[in-house]
Amino acid sequence: MKTLMNVAETVVDDALRGMAAAHPELLVEVENRVVARRDAPVAGKVALVSGGGSGHEPLHGGFVGPGMLDAACPGEVFTSPVPDQMVRAATLVDSGSGVLFLVKNYTGDVLNFQMAAELAEEDGVRVASVLVDDDVAVTDSTFTAGRRGTGATLFVEKIAGAAADEGRDLAEVEAVARRVVAASRSFGVALTACTTPAKGSPTFDLPADELELGIGIHGEPGRERRAMMTSREIADYAVDAVLDDLSPEGPVLLLVNGTGGTPLLELYGFSAEVQRRLTEREVPVARTLVGNYVTSLDMAGCSVTLCQADEEMLRLWDAPVATPGLRWGR
Amino acid sequence: MKTLMNVAETVVDDALRGMAAAHPELLVEVENRVVARRDAPVAGKVALVSGGGSGHEPLHGGFVGPGMLDAACPGEVFTSPVPDQMVRAATLVDSGSGVLFLVKNYTGDVLNFQMAAELAEEDGVRVASVLVDDDVAVTDSTFTAGRRGTGATLFVEKIAGAAADEGRDLAEVEAVARRVVAASRSFGVALTACTTPAKGSPTFDLPADELELGIGIHGEPGRERRAMMTSREIADYAVDAVLDDLSPEGPVLLLVNGTGGTPLLELYGFSAEVQRRLTEREVPVARTLVGNYVTSLDMAGCSVTLCQADEEMLRLWDAPVATPGLRWGR
Repeated sequence: MKTLMNVAETVVDDALRGMAAAHPELLVEVENRVVARRDAPVAGKVALVSGGGSGHEPLHGGFVGPGMLDAACPGEVFTSPVPDQMVRAATLVDSGSGVLFLVKNYTGDVLNFQMAAELAEEDGVRVASVLVDDDVAVTDSTFTAGRRGTGATLFVEKIAGAAADEGRDLAEVEAVARRVVAASRSFGVALTACTTPAKGSPTFDLPADELELGIGIHGEPGRERRAMMTSREIADYAVDAVLDDLSPEGPVLLLVNGTGGTPLLELYGFSAEVQRRLTEREVPVARTLVGNYVTSLDMAGCSVTLCQADEEMLRLWDAPVATPGLRWGR
Repeated sequence: MKTLMNVAETVVDDALRGMAAAHPELLVEVENRVVARRDAPVAGKVALVSGGGSGHEPLHGGFVGPGMLDAACPGEVFTSPVPDQMVRAATLVDSGSGVLFLVKNYTGDVLNFQMAAELAEEDGVRVASVLVDDDVAVTDSTFTAGRRGTGATLFVEKIAGAAADEGRDLAEVEAVARRVVAASRSFGVALTACTTPAKGSPTFDLPADELELGIGIHGEPGRERRAMMTSREIADYAVDAVLDDLSPEGPVLLLVNGTGGTPLLELYGFSAEVQRRLTEREVPVARTLVGNYVTSLDMAGCSVTLCQADEEMLRLWDAPVATPGLRWGR
């Protein structure tokens, strides 16, 4: 594989320059590596800040805007951002109503957001944090103690973002985010490895006739490798893996996510099989989102995320959002 | 490469089933291979119909909805849809105000849309057609006499869609579409070949240390192959190729398009270089869109499309649109 870049060292900065030029509604501080709403801080509103390693776009920078994140901190590719970025983001967007950190469960991110929370508190910013750990594939992985944070991050950022938009206070927005985490589970599959700009070749070996079930979003090992499976078989495996861990009593939000290298044509075909399996398992689907939202650079593959959504969560999901990566209702 | 599918023969039908389940606001006729607005025909509105081979998603089915297309006809992968699909689409969405066919310039599409126009007219549907031929890379190519139709299709569908939304008549909407075609030029670059589901391996050979400049969206030959270039060098080449053919006197619409396999992180970095080059060439950019919109399955690569937009075209570009692939303002 080849990377469309100048040199690997500037890939993140170059992308931030591109975002700055394409999205005048965003404030992009290339040097500080912060993407924020240009109109932040929004008076009276709890601010949402997330971040993580780059390479998962549009997550998180592409989810900054009204109805979702107030700011995002991109780290190097597949590497946690540093506390200074998070503190800068928090102080930039805090209106005095406090800041909620949304953190995917990877050890580096967890430690750095923890340190940033302490530093921001010293600067007078009230901070709460919610950990996203939705991936049922494995417990304890290359970069993680416990379950990894993956597709549910999108649900948490959208739904908590809408709650913040309604003017709820920090404890309330935090509680909504925790409810979404508790109600969400994911499972991912890789058909190919991904290529980081620094390495320039696949980050792990996956034979041409095999796939990996339960892959992590950085290519961390999953549950098992098998001979290549059909879309139908993969959907059965992924949906059943999620439902082994989550027994929805009502309708679900469904994210059928592409990991970057899988064409949308194939992803919609996979989504049809996911919906068929959910029907067989008698799980009603309230809303479906299909696309490349939480990616792993050029990895071919897919993931399934379900969130058992109560009426309030559905209402917040449907609320307007206006970000580069997710947009509806305004 | 591997394809996420059941069998190659059902890839398009499977994707349509996935679209039907994910988008209740669309009417998806899997058997007839038509994707239409569920609320069509819209009284008093000229209807826009497009279509082409599958493998370029979200184009065209993902651009069906208020403010853009009324219907789309997907063919087999990289194969023109047949006239029956187009006639079915036209009769389904015609409100009596007429139908505008938007046709990318590939010989199969041109002939089939022409036959469909005649058949629809026999059924009492007034039809006008506009050909999109924006690709400056080559004249006469594998599937095309004249220039190929690529990224400008998105501009034409969006801007003519907004004109139709304003209640203009068929001749007026057709005239707007023609103005957009006349004002638009594109140039594409491939870093890798793409893999069709039927073939299961790359459709052409592109050495690991080379790229192809001027590639077509089905992998048709471009202008030349060169040793791998930097993002900056590619941007200079692509922008200059477009500006050799178009001398904008005012601000442009800019589409920095990914061909499917290039990560969004890299695409934004490339977009920064495109904007730099446009600044050097003293071409002001009024609006920028960055993403995978006119794809070639899993091909890694990018294309640049410019449209010299007058004030009316900019206003129509900014008008609300609500489709799976492009959405803003409502």
